[in-house]
Amino acid sequence: MGEQEKIELLQKNFGAWEHLSDEEKKGLVKNSYFTTCQKGENVHRGERECKGLIFVCKGLLRAYMMSDEGKEVPLYRMDEGEWCILSASCVISNITFDVHIEAEKETELLIISAPYFRRMTTNNIYVECLAYKMATDGFSEVMWAMQQMLFMSFDKRLAVFLWDESSACGSDTIKMTHEQVAKHTGSAREVVTRMLKSFANNGIVELSRGGIKIIDKEKLRKLTE
Amino acid sequence: MGEQEKIELLQKNFGAWEHLSDEEKKGLVKNSYFTTCQKGENVHRGERECKGLIFVCKGLLRAYMMSDEGKEVPLYRMDEGEWCILSASCVISNITFDVHIEAEKETELLIISAPYFRRMTTNNIYVECLAYKMATDGFSEVMWAMQQMLFMSFDKRLAVFLWDESSACGSDTIKMTHEQVAKHTGSAREVVTRMLKSFANNGIVELSRGGIKIIDKEKLRKLTE
Repeated sequence: MGEQEKIELLQKNFGAWEHLSDEEKKGLVKNSYFTTCQKGENVHRGERECKGLIFVCKGLLRAYMMSDEGKEVPLYRMDEGEWCILSASCVISNITFDVHIEAEKETELLIISAPYFRRMTTNNIYVECLAYKMATDGFSEVMWAMQQMLFMSFDKRLAVFLWDESSACGSDTIKMTHEQVAKHTGSAREVVTRMLKSFANNGIVELSRGGIKIIDKEKLRKLTE
Repeated sequence: MGEQEKIELLQKNFGAWEHLSDEEKKGLVKNSYFTTCQKGENVHRGERECKGLIFVCKGLLRAYMMSDEGKEVPLYRMDEGEWCILSASCVISNITFDVHIEAEKETELLIISAPYFRRMTTNNIYVECLAYKMATDGFSEVMWAMQQMLFMSFDKRLAVFLWDESSACGSDTIKMTHEQVAKHTGSAREVVTRMLKSFANNGIVELSRGGIKIIDKEKLRKLTE
């Protein structure tokens, strides 16, 4: 992709763009580059690596922790149009943990180099704020993963609800908003949305504006057990 | 504590103080109040509660998650001189998870009301940045707790806990029940009791009704490695 696409992409997706000086805008464009990762490739390897701030143009990244013995704990995924701040952890002095980031399929990235990103966060409060905001987003995702992992209850609850609802309507498509599902399952809308996305990633449902379509009944049934 | 102490405390500890207008400073002082919590008292109860931004003047708070079945997972502690942002989660739109916060002993707090804190984060980029920075601090703490819980064997985890606790109190005796130690280490009471007995058999600790006394520091230290 070329220079013009880079500018347009940053303009559209870098949250603090309107608060940058002309010089900072130029610097940002100059200090960021497109790259492609193959499926399974490591984008960021924990420890002291610091690639910079990553934007997922196309494809999918996943973040996980790894123990000394090589045991993996999945944290969250970054989809097209999402930023990954953990790969710039050296810039954020209070991110003091190590994660690994890997491409789940062929993935196109835009990377803002760590030194330049650091300089921007130091000089521009809006960029600093954006960086911490991104980290807080990651926090929510991780807490969600942790809840899942430690309690394992909501996915089951949601699966049971979708199963019962589908049986009751005699249809594979549940015509409800995420807000409505949240009410029925005693949860929050954000939580439902995230869980449905995870179901969709696992090929259990298909999401559309019209509702939630069950595409793999057997997988869903297994979840309800 | 009085008005003058409140001003001094905020001036010294509220990170964005120098970036506040005189009006904001006045508003901040007016919309914050001292309060005392008894040992075991719930400061924040997850779900939709939103007390505001909390500063620990004296004492100790702990944050934990709770499953539907009442299982607790300890997250981290907030000591004297530390801020607690999770109790103001309604202000930070991207904090979408629920935590509980409890006083571990009699604790004096300064609370900045949620509505005023929200107004400040909306109007002042430095306050917004501070809020996200605090959340990112919490993120690091939680990641550490998670690593402990998922990767570390329980004997090591317990040893680390006893070591830290002894250092924090400046005493070789940890005055806690096994139940309390279980809560802090994300374990079950029976597991703690069994492991403590094994520590006692190895001459590392001595158990009594009053608590757990460390009798071989060197052995304990080796376990933490």
